[in-house]
Amino acid sequence: MPSAISLITLLTDFGEQDYFVASMKGVMLNINPQVRIVDLSHRVAPYHIEDAGYLLKSSCHYFPVGTIHVAVVDPGVGSARRPLLVSTSRYFFLAPDNGLLSAVLKDERSTEIRQIENKQYRLDSEGATFDGRDIFAPAAAWLTRGQAPGSFGRLIHDPVTFPEQEPAWEGPALVGRIVYVDHFGNAISNITSPHLSEVRKYTKRTSVTIHIAGATIDDLVTCYADGKTDAPRAVVNSNGHVEIFLKEGSAAAVLNVGKGDRIEIH
Amino acid sequence: MPSAISLITLLTDFGEQDYFVASMKGVMLNINPQVRIVDLSHRVAPYHIEDAGYLLKSSCHYFPVGTIHVAVVDPGVGSARRPLLVSTSRYFFLAPDNGLLSAVLKDERSTEIRQIENKQYRLDSEGATFDGRDIFAPAAAWLTRGQAPGSFGRLIHDPVTFPEQEPAWEGPALVGRIVYVDHFGNAISNITSPHLSEVRKYTKRTSVTIHIAGATIDDLVTCYADGKTDAPRAVVNSNGHVEIFLKEGSAAAVLNVGKGDRIEIH
Amino acid sequence: MPSAISLITLLTDFGEQDYFVASMKGVMLNINPQVRIVDLSHRVAPYHIEDAGYLLKSSCHYFPVGTIHVAVVDPGVGSARRPLLVSTSRYFFLAPDNGLLSAVLKDERSTEIRQIENKQYRLDSEGATFDGRDIFAPAAAWLTRGQAPGSFGRLIHDPVTFPEQEPAWEGPALVGRIVYVDHFGNAISNITSPHLSEVRKYTKRTSVTIHIAGATIDDLVTCYADGKTDAPRAVVNSNGHVEIFLKEGSAAAVLNVGKGDRIEIH
Repeated sequence: MPSAISLITLLTDFGEQDYFVASMKGVMLNINPQVRIVDLSHRVAPYHIEDAGYLLKSSCHYFPVGTIHVAVVDPGVGSARRPLLVSTSRYFFLAPDNGLLSAVLKDERSTEIRQIENKQYRLDSEGATFDGRDIFAPAAAWLTRGQAPGSFGRLIHDPVTFPEQEPAWEGPALVGRIVYVDHFGNAISNITSPHLSEVRKYTKRTSVTIHIAGATIDDLVTCYADGKTDAPRAVVNSNGHVEIFLKEGSAAAVLNVGKGDRIEIH
Repeated sequence: MPSAISLITLLTDFGEQDYFVASMKGVMLNINPQVRIVDLSHRVAPYHIEDAGYLLKSSCHYFPVGTIHVAVVDPGVGSARRPLLVSTSRYFFLAPDNGLLSAVLKDERSTEIRQIENKQYRLDSEGATFDGRDIFAPAAAWLTRGQAPGSFGRLIHDPVTFPEQEPAWEGPALVGRIVYVDHFGNAISNITSPHLSEVRKYTKRTSVTIHIAGATIDDLVTCYADGKTDAPRAVVNSNGHVEIFLKEGSAAAVLNVGKGDRIEIH
Repeated sequence: MPSAISLITLLTDFGEQDYFVASMKGVMLNINPQVRIVDLSHRVAPYHIEDAGYLLKSSCHYFPVGTIHVAVVDPGVGSARRPLLVSTSRYFFLAPDNGLLSAVLKDERSTEIRQIENKQYRLDSEGATFDGRDIFAPAAAWLTRGQAPGSFGRLIHDPVTFPEQEPAWEGPALVGRIVYVDHFGNAISNITSPHLSEVRKYTKRTSVTIHIAGATIDDLVTCYADGKTDAPRAVVNSNGHVEIFLKEGSAAAVLNVGKGDRIEIH
């Protein structure tokens, strides 16, 4: 387990218009004025737990060892769902026990999961609708002050996890799904570089053909600049995933594809 | 009066697309490179002074004593309206004298209000359209360097304030208003926990009935998870206000309610 | 050339919804945990290089000497276009060599331009689609650790620049263009205070008349509060540019004007 450093990232679906994120920051700064807070994103689509998991998995590992990642997309706030504090070989993660961390935890080692239950580290406040401010923010700030994970609550061994959605072979095609559409309209699949190698090994060819939403894309290019403005192309993106893009445009809009849509590699 | 710490919050209607907020931060960092700046929100609807007041009131008190809160929603910028520096028992507030601080100041003690007029602490720049950058940002940064409030300008005793909008009894019903609709579409009223106690005392029942926009809501639940996805419910929110929500949806959209709309508690 | 301080600004078209900006911040904090990062804007319209140049030029000079300005609007990412590190008498600028810096560099002195090519200061990662994270973020962070600009790559003398778009006389009228529309719907032109003085000298009058989108605006006011809610007015804005605004409304929407549209001063 690493030592917590005074660096906290925040990932929520709270948006940036209201006082929610600022309240969390205020609570943390009140407990530890030296804490440094980096916004991961506050524009997760409301209640989209899996999107939050994808964003966290895609960026958490760029941060220094000891960083505390707080992720609050929490439709079950105030119910019996448990608030979690997870320690791994390199990071801390605080999130509701609703599957948000399932993608992230696959990449982590020496994982220890606790339920945050010690009222001493909880903000005393009205209502049961804002655990981000009342439970997660204070716990993260107390971690930066050296409080040991064990002091927050008991170990648990049955966190909620989502079933893994891996691409699968259907005859000669590897079939995956779009898992995320980004700000530029790039459609990102769950097919990665190692999957591409499998396909190439199977077909004994270096090039592949991609089918998505009725369109056929011949092979991949290596960067956006090699794309076309009038036809989507495919690229292995900065995350190692096959991504469908339109040069200086939105592939998702042009192809009318979204999360969950099918993509085939031949 | 507290000592200013090097922590400044920023609340504006400047949006996040332009260079406005960054200019303010640059000015502050130029005066004090050690200053720490937290964005409260920059997405107040343009010129909506009361929304800014609501957001500031809802979050300012989570910050450490000595924090400097800067709020600039300022349709009258460049006119005769005065720029204010307010010191209270725990915070500093800088804002235009247009009523923005009226909600906040009700919660503060030992309030001292000054007009910022000393040109020494003003950025010399072209135009009279950006007091956020030219007056408020430098004043806040100079406060973090230990400059006394008295050096910025004279005391004033007649700040602009909005009339208080308290719920009122109409026959057997307590009638309030929606004061804010948040990012999730939750409709927040000016009816608070103490008001609910009044209603319960009057009716001699523990349950209440809520009327809003033609809908009837039976009593309150304690958290969002106890709501329904097909019918709005009511909750006392994390701010102590009665709030109408739709589980994993937008109550404001479903009920077609907005700021100023009527809500009755029976 | 100044010494780099541990202050980095970030300007991108990455939006705030995804993990892009956070990844860049993680990379920088991993190299130098003391680095301080200020968001300039991440809402440049995707691929709008000139808008980024305008925003950077409008705000970079408010920051302390030694600040490192990183600007990534980069449709050519992964292609042969060069990543640049520019040192001037007061700042550092890191950006793709696509014209983004042309507006800024006109204001700078003692400019030295290098190509970032030393693989030692590059993040080793998959794909060629995210130079913001893999090239620009690490280079900026290494600068804050005292690495000399010369260690990043060779000097170049032929950066891409956009042609300057200056207002021009057409008979008795000075004709300019709208260069930016801001969050409030203010339409900002490339006509500045010195241009107005030229017009006044030519006409031997102190007042001017402005034609834009079929509308005629009589002279300028000095602040937004002096405008009208039903007719656009003109003002010299906080940047020294002639700006068309509507009091508490959007001039761009009412006049239906956008970037590139013609404005005449008589």
